[in-house]
Amino acid sequence: MRPIDDAPVTRDGKVLVLAYDHGIEHGPVDFDPQPESANPEHVFEVATHPAVTSLAVGKGVAEAYYPSYEDDVSLLAKLNGTSNLWMGEPDSAVNCSVEYAAEELGAESIGFTVYPGTNCEVEMFEEFREVQEKAREYGLPVVMWSYARGQGVKNDTKDDVIAYAARLGLELGADVAKVKYPGSREAMERVNRMAGPTKVIMSGGSKKNDREFLENVKSVIDAGGAGLAVGRNVWQRENPRRILDALEKVIYEEASVDEALQAAPAKA
Amino acid sequence: MRPIDDAPVTRDGKVLVLAYDHGIEHGPVDFDPQPESANPEHVFEVATHPAVTSLAVGKGVAEAYYPSYEDDVSLLAKLNGTSNLWMGEPDSAVNCSVEYAAEELGAESIGFTVYPGTNCEVEMFEEFREVQEKAREYGLPVVMWSYARGQGVKNDTKDDVIAYAARLGLELGADVAKVKYPGSREAMERVNRMAGPTKVIMSGGSKKNDREFLENVKSVIDAGGAGLAVGRNVWQRENPRRILDALEKVIYEEASVDEALQAAPAKA
Amino acid sequence: MRPIDDAPVTRDGKVLVLAYDHGIEHGPVDFDPQPESANPEHVFEVATHPAVTSLAVGKGVAEAYYPSYEDDVSLLAKLNGTSNLWMGEPDSAVNCSVEYAAEELGAESIGFTVYPGTNCEVEMFEEFREVQEKAREYGLPVVMWSYARGQGVKNDTKDDVIAYAARLGLELGADVAKVKYPGSREAMERVNRMAGPTKVIMSGGSKKNDREFLENVKSVIDAGGAGLAVGRNVWQRENPRRILDALEKVIYEEASVDEALQAAPAKA
Amino acid sequence: MRPIDDAPVTRDGKVLVLAYDHGIEHGPVDFDPQPESANPEHVFEVATHPAVTSLAVGKGVAEAYYPSYEDDVSLLAKLNGTSNLWMGEPDSAVNCSVEYAAEELGAESIGFTVYPGTNCEVEMFEEFREVQEKAREYGLPVVMWSYARGQGVKNDTKDDVIAYAARLGLELGADVAKVKYPGSREAMERVNRMAGPTKVIMSGGSKKNDREFLENVKSVIDAGGAGLAVGRNVWQRENPRRILDALEKVIYEEASVDEALQAAPAKA
Amino acid sequence: MRPIDDAPVTRDGKVLVLAYDHGIEHGPVDFDPQPESANPEHVFEVATHPAVTSLAVGKGVAEAYYPSYEDDVSLLAKLNGTSNLWMGEPDSAVNCSVEYAAEELGAESIGFTVYPGTNCEVEMFEEFREVQEKAREYGLPVVMWSYARGQGVKNDTKDDVIAYAARLGLELGADVAKVKYPGSREAMERVNRMAGPTKVIMSGGSKKNDREFLENVKSVIDAGGAGLAVGRNVWQRENPRRILDALEKVIYEEASVDEALQAAPAKA
Repeated sequence: MRPIDDAPVTRDGKVLVLAYDHGIEHGPVDFDPQPESANPEHVFEVATHPAVTSLAVGKGVAEAYYPSYEDDVSLLAKLNGTSNLWMGEPDSAVNCSVEYAAEELGAESIGFTVYPGTNCEVEMFEEFREVQEKAREYGLPVVMWSYARGQGVKNDTKDDVIAYAARLGLELGADVAKVKYPGSREAMERVNRMAGPTKVIMSGGSKKNDREFLENVKSVIDAGGAGLAVGRNVWQRENPRRILDALEKVIYEEASVDEALQAAPAKA
Repeated sequence: MRPIDDAPVTRDGKVLVLAYDHGIEHGPVDFDPQPESANPEHVFEVATHPAVTSLAVGKGVAEAYYPSYEDDVSLLAKLNGTSNLWMGEPDSAVNCSVEYAAEELGAESIGFTVYPGTNCEVEMFEEFREVQEKAREYGLPVVMWSYARGQGVKNDTKDDVIAYAARLGLELGADVAKVKYPGSREAMERVNRMAGPTKVIMSGGSKKNDREFLENVKSVIDAGGAGLAVGRNVWQRENPRRILDALEKVIYEEASVDEALQAAPAKA
Repeated sequence: MRPIDDAPVTRDGKVLVLAYDHGIEHGPVDFDPQPESANPEHVFEVATHPAVTSLAVGKGVAEAYYPSYEDDVSLLAKLNGTSNLWMGEPDSAVNCSVEYAAEELGAESIGFTVYPGTNCEVEMFEEFREVQEKAREYGLPVVMWSYARGQGVKNDTKDDVIAYAARLGLELGADVAKVKYPGSREAMERVNRMAGPTKVIMSGGSKKNDREFLENVKSVIDAGGAGLAVGRNVWQRENPRRILDALEKVIYEEASVDEALQAAPAKA
Repeated sequence: MRPIDDAPVTRDGKVLVLAYDHGIEHGPVDFDPQPESANPEHVFEVATHPAVTSLAVGKGVAEAYYPSYEDDVSLLAKLNGTSNLWMGEPDSAVNCSVEYAAEELGAESIGFTVYPGTNCEVEMFEEFREVQEKAREYGLPVVMWSYARGQGVKNDTKDDVIAYAARLGLELGADVAKVKYPGSREAMERVNRMAGPTKVIMSGGSKKNDREFLENVKSVIDAGGAGLAVGRNVWQRENPRRILDALEKVIYEEASVDEALQAAPAKA
Repeated sequence: MRPIDDAPVTRDGKVLVLAYDHGIEHGPVDFDPQPESANPEHVFEVATHPAVTSLAVGKGVAEAYYPSYEDDVSLLAKLNGTSNLWMGEPDSAVNCSVEYAAEELGAESIGFTVYPGTNCEVEMFEEFREVQEKAREYGLPVVMWSYARGQGVKNDTKDDVIAYAARLGLELGADVAKVKYPGSREAMERVNRMAGPTKVIMSGGSKKNDREFLENVKSVIDAGGAGLAVGRNVWQRENPRRILDALEKVIYEEASVDEALQAAPAKA
């Protein structure tokens, strides 16, 4: 494990990835609740918030918009992704090479999804191997989206499954593992323990109210987790900077959820 | 996204691709309504019309005819394609490499089909990745034929599906996305919005009467679209130059359909 | 399309390929009617006849016999082929690389089979791409054996199907397309028209009597076709030189079938 | 077979691999009986015991922890492995390249699993070929985890099956073959005979009591086997050093099981 | 076809390959009738008999033992092979590269199995292509194990099938084709005729009594065959040198079976 505590994907050892790969994974329907979120410029602007350590986007969005934001945003190139029009076994197309991300896009970290438990596990692990080893050549930290799925995974939010997903991050050489929230601080502590020095971040998931969302994040931090990757819970909000202000308090300043909500009032 | 507004595939930021890949995709039956259209020379001649920004053909046709037209026509090398004799899952053979298109054919832009929603989506996205990254090396704009299909796509002209197809053009790094017409100007505006700086062009589709066809094109332009790719609606006509005259008015000169039809009368 | 009219595979713009790939495609049973035809030397001797522009054989036969005939025969290396012991979907193994054919065998042209309409169409088109582009590097003309087959092809001698097969030769970059005889001169004219500058040659097929065979060839020539590829109709005959004399008249000297038969009498 | 008797994976020609690939193969559940075993540091500490010739771990664990132990532990990079969330045909993802193991991780030997008898046998043998030939370039000994499985293998602890598995180690070029215990000293002698100069080591398997476990190991040594690879039987124990002391007696000092147990008393 | 009459795999144009790939193909059960045959040293010793032109073994056995025998035995590296634990469609893993065989093992010829008629025919032919072309670079003769199998092959000892298998050796560029015995001298003559200059050798098959075995070999030689590849019929015998003495008479000295048996009496 290469030290990543001074890499741009972290701040004080913590991680807050703003994820914006919904255009490929879910399609325009995800932008409907907040139409301006369809415009990548809006999201790049949000990503200039100091709480955000990296913005995760695919190749095309990075090519089109990152040149205007490279001084203010750290690019996490999300290399694989697939539309949800496809009804087959979970899999993910590799849409960008590490070389292209590093040399042409100017990425400062790499993101890659694996689906342990599916029929594509072996193929995806092997794709991850190539990506991870190539990223090491470029000195780029690797964030693994680790989501157990498939016929053998009856409940993908069960703590055992999430602990396994995080452990796979360590075993396969990820610097950061992005997993679902396992439901409690105690479960999250075990998840962290299994990942060793691989930083664990929570997947933001579908939109929640402020308090519920921040309490989940708080329990991740309290459990020793590194932070979260968040998409819809930020850019589907009317005022995304307000929730980022609150996240900054919780993640980097050891604030309570109440303190964070007070410092970033809804009517600011 | 590299700027393509000064690339030969555009004129004043607009695009009119004359598509002639029907010999592989549909076979000789498409030439029957206008037998001379079987002769590529006829189509190359048509493509010298100033309204046409590029002519899209496959490798063999380019090899045989483009040397005589390279001063008057801009070649868009359509790299993949498959016969309709094949009854399997939608897929498309890669019949020409980017290297060959750039170095041997003299192509000035690249075309590539993807079928999101099919079992071949992952494979086609990955082929697109290689094509797109290689085309960037040669500085060639990439046009994505983006047609959602497959078991999960019940209606491939639904506006949500077409908006998703256009967004995939942006996400995967296409300079231009060629999609079906979504049925209305309002739907087309949303499609354009989803594609960001990726130019959206309408697929010409099967032959229509002049007014109906031009009204579709007009609504694309009015909605902010870049233009269209057209095949049968041009070279299946007795006088293809007449419809190109009209398209020139609509696409580049902000003319109404009536103005365009008057300027290019049927009995010219 | 590179000019091939001065390549060894043609004579005065016409083509007569002697095909001898039956040892792999059909096995020894094809040699039983004329046992000496099992001996490649016999066939190489026949191929020295001036009517023959090229001899099509696989790698092993070329390696073993061509060194003795390279001054008198022009080698067409048939790169792919499969035994008929196999009962699966039509496919064809690539048994020789272009590099080996060009550098080690001394081939002066390349032959490659595709089966449009089968489940292997995409794979075979992509193999053809690699072969065609590599052959261009060596300046070798490419002959495509273009045989539509598969579940969607109910009748592979239907003229539409054969016209499509010939057009695919043009579209994919073949210099010569070898197709089945479509049944009439009129149908053959359309086939030729669809192929543009790609030369169309008729597949000789199973053995026929002299007059019937020559009349088919005559109608191909009259329809503007370039000639034929013939195997069993030559080397399954007791006197193969006699039928080659007759073919020479019909193909290169514009003779009628009667003239050709008189000039090469059965009892010569 | 390259001589490996002076390679770090052996001591006096014997082998004791401490295996710690359970985080990927079985997941966190394997660490529950001894929670500190989830922490790779604990296992690296155990591996400094002089009885241990190599520690087998995957890429990510090696990257994170081996830099602190490279003077005291010899790294066996286990290249492939798959989660048990997956319900498909036995297979194993290649998660680390030989180049990366040799050049970046500092591995002194290589481990690779094959599953003869499964549908993936051909693929895994071919992966093994590449790994073995590349490992030879780096001069690294290769340990084959050789586990017969699949529809044709009704009983994977049958002595014939294990003898075959060991023989495959010899045939495919492994320096060491790791197989299941065949049940008796006599069966183990035949297994050794079949493997020729390929060293045979017993797989430790699930946790057993001290005497039963040591008696199995003793019979392996008495039968001429080289030793064992052991995981849970060491680091699931409260005092792993005690069992390693006993193993050292049995493997390297020709001690009886009683002597070994006396020298390493349970209450030490 | 490159001349191989002065290559080590032949003696006076004849071939006697001692085959010892049973450890991978059949497993230890093949060694049970003569337990010392499990020890490759025993077989290498047998292979020093002057009647033996080459010893066919896999990579691992060659690595381990050939360095001690390279002055007295000519190594035929058998590149592919698969265990019979596997119940799937006939296929064979490529366990050794030509490069490794030539440069590291010191092989003087190459062996490769193909199964015409199976679902893997296309794949195996293509693997054979790569092996054959690479072997040509190293100047190594190629022996094809040519065994027709699969759903379309009802009887794999039918003479038509064996003649086809031998012809495929010629067509694909093998120097020697190893086929099953077709049952009679007449059938064998046709098999030879189909193979042209590719030498045909008989597969020894399961163990037979001396006279029956030698009579088969004699009929192969009388029919113009080059010899045989033999495994179990030699090293499953108590005195393998005696049968090799007899084979030497029959293959190289034109002796009758009676003469051969007298010269090499059972009680020698």
